[in-house]
Amino acid sequence: MKKINFKEKFANFDEHWEPKVIAKLNNYEFKLVKVKDDFIWHHHETTDEAFVVLEGILGIEFEEETIMLEKGEMLVVPKGTKHRPFAKKEAQILIVEPGNVVNTGNVEDKLTAPNDEWV
Amino acid sequence: MKKINFKEKFANFDEHWEPKVIAKLNNYEFKLVKVKDDFIWHHHETTDEAFVVLEGILGIEFEEETIMLEKGEMLVVPKGTKHRPFAKKEAQILIVEPGNVVNTGNVEDKLTAPNDEWV
Repeated sequence: MKKINFKEKFANFDEHWEPKVIAKLNNYEFKLVKVKDDFIWHHHETTDEAFVVLEGILGIEFEEETIMLEKGEMLVVPKGTKHRPFAKKEAQILIVEPGNVVNTGNVEDKLTAPNDEWV
Repeated sequence: MKKINFKEKFANFDEHWEPKVIAKLNNYEFKLVKVKDDFIWHHHETTDEAFVVLEGILGIEFEEETIMLEKGEMLVVPKGTKHRPFAKKEAQILIVEPGNVVNTGNVEDKLTAPNDEWV
């Protein structure tokens, strides 16, 4: 059992849009990700997805609206909901979702990241 | 779909050791709790429990050690692990765990809080 310091974990990687696992909670995972510029439109067929902003501002575009999340804010994207994350400047995000969720959901793309990458 | 601001949610209640649900993620819940002074020894038979410190310092005493968590740090307490949270000054915590987990786990106590209290 070991506590996790977000700042220390973020110092271990630089790449954008590649979630890194930091903890497991039953069959769920806590992942950190650095984001910048535009992600792709996608959805997750079988699960909701929680985004918590730890630094910066994360935008999430939906078909009907765009939601801007600042540090200290979170959003749960319901399963099946098309969304496109983006960030004008680098932001640091905590994602909570079941294990083995692919970051690009239903889409295979050059931004599709490997799972089970720990920092 | 509505974003959640932790500071705004914390402004809606004052009581200690009574987790308030702010979001559901599949059958999991995100809860905010204000803590101060000593909680009781307990464990959760069927689930891990994640603590994320948003403000202040949370101590968690275990049988073999005590872990102090500061703002920007988290810990997953494995299921079945006896623990006793405490805080010398008020701290603000985010808990992630399955729905319907009782805050005092296996123990019925005056600190046992009702579930499904939303803010």
